[in-house]
Formats: sequence, structure tokens, C-alpha cells
Amino acid sequence: MRDAKAMAATPADVIEHPNAYAFVVDMPGIKGDEIKVQVENENVLVVSGERKRESKENEGVKYVRMERRMGKFMRKFQLPENADLEKISAVCHDGVLKVTVQKLPPPEPK
Amino acid sequence: MRDAKAMAATPADVIEHPNAYAFVVDMPGIKGDEIKVQVENENVLVVSGERKRESKENEGVKYVRMERRMGKFMRKFQLPENADLEKISAVCHDGVLKVTVQKLPPPEPK
Repeated sequence: MRDAKAMAATPADVIEHPNAYAFVVDMPGIKGDEIKVQVENENVLVVSGERKRESKENEGVKYVRMERRMGKFMRKFQLPENADLEKISAVCHDGVLKVTVQKLPPPEPK
Repeated sequence: MRDAKAMAATPADVIEHPNAYAFVVDMPGIKGDEIKVQVENENVLVVSGERKRESKENEGVKYVRMERRMGKFMRKFQLPENADLEKISAVCHDGVLKVTVQKLPPPEPK
């Protein structure tokens, strides 16, 4: 799922609902308006963002422990054939992004 | 850092400022009022919370991918001797909890 060395992946769930797909991605510490949601090649959903440490190591600030991963995050998801690319919405709450992609209606029986 | 099998750890940074310590813990998907911040034995800071999946697998909902860890989270941090247990505050933004513990003033020179 990684596109380049500098990009870190972040855990995600993919849920199929009767009329839509939901892509749920953990993005703690990234504000909603700093997250990019794009569609590549008409069938790949790309979610990306970047987070930076709040405090820099200088002027008396010292990191005693540093486990949280910083930098650029990205996840790509293959979209199913019946995904409606015109009906994609995204919300972000408490550091969790949820992208909803509606399904196209099933083809009419002939 | 794990207290029991069912508890999962979550990444944290610990930052020493000139007058305070900051404990920064990723807790995506947990609302601030669902996080517990406690002090045990007068020298251990305990941060805990629980997150649950939004959608249950039933009535046409199907998890295609399930990577996000759910359940109880906990982290414990040894507090330094000069931590002021009377001056602890916590804020949560975008799924990141930040607990600030002020330092006691240094002892007066005799």
C-alpha cells in the first residue's frame, strides 16, 4: 500500500453497505482540511495527509520518548466496478476519516 | 506497556518543557470525554479509553478489510519526581490526547 519510501501507511477498514462503500482511515492529529481525497485512473481512491510534530526540539524542549509517526501518510484503495465516482463524500471526526462512495444502481433487467 | 492481554498500546510521545511534561497519545476515534486520565500510586500516569466499530457486521454490512484495532487502549507513564500532581490538565483534538503535568518549583537554595 506504500507509494514511496517517505510515505507511511495508516490502518483502514473497508465496509460494504447495501448502497455504498465506506473507507475508514485512522489519521490522528491531522485536521480534516489537511486531508486530500482523490480518485486516480477512475478506479483508485487515494487518501493522503501529513502531520508534523507540535513541538520542535529546541529552546529547552526535549523529546524523552518519540513513538508517534510523523510525515506524509497515504492509502490507496481499488474501487469496485459499481462505485459511483460522482457520489463521493468525506467526513473527519476525532482523527478518523470516513470516505463514502455510493454504488451505481444495478443494471436494469432486459 | 501492556497491562493485560485485552489492552492494546497506542503510540505516544513524551516531551519535557522547561516548566512541564507533556504526554501526547494517539487515540483516533475516541472522543475526549471517553478518555480516562488517572494517577496511580502517586507516580504513574494512566491514560485509557475504548473504541468500538461504528458498524456491526449484520443486515447487509460486510467488512471487506479490517485493520483498525478496536477495544480498550491503555498507556502508563512513570512520572518524574518533580511532577506536580496537583497541576495536571488534558485536552483532546483530532484524536490526539495531550496531558500536561506541571513541574514543581526547584527547591530553594539554603
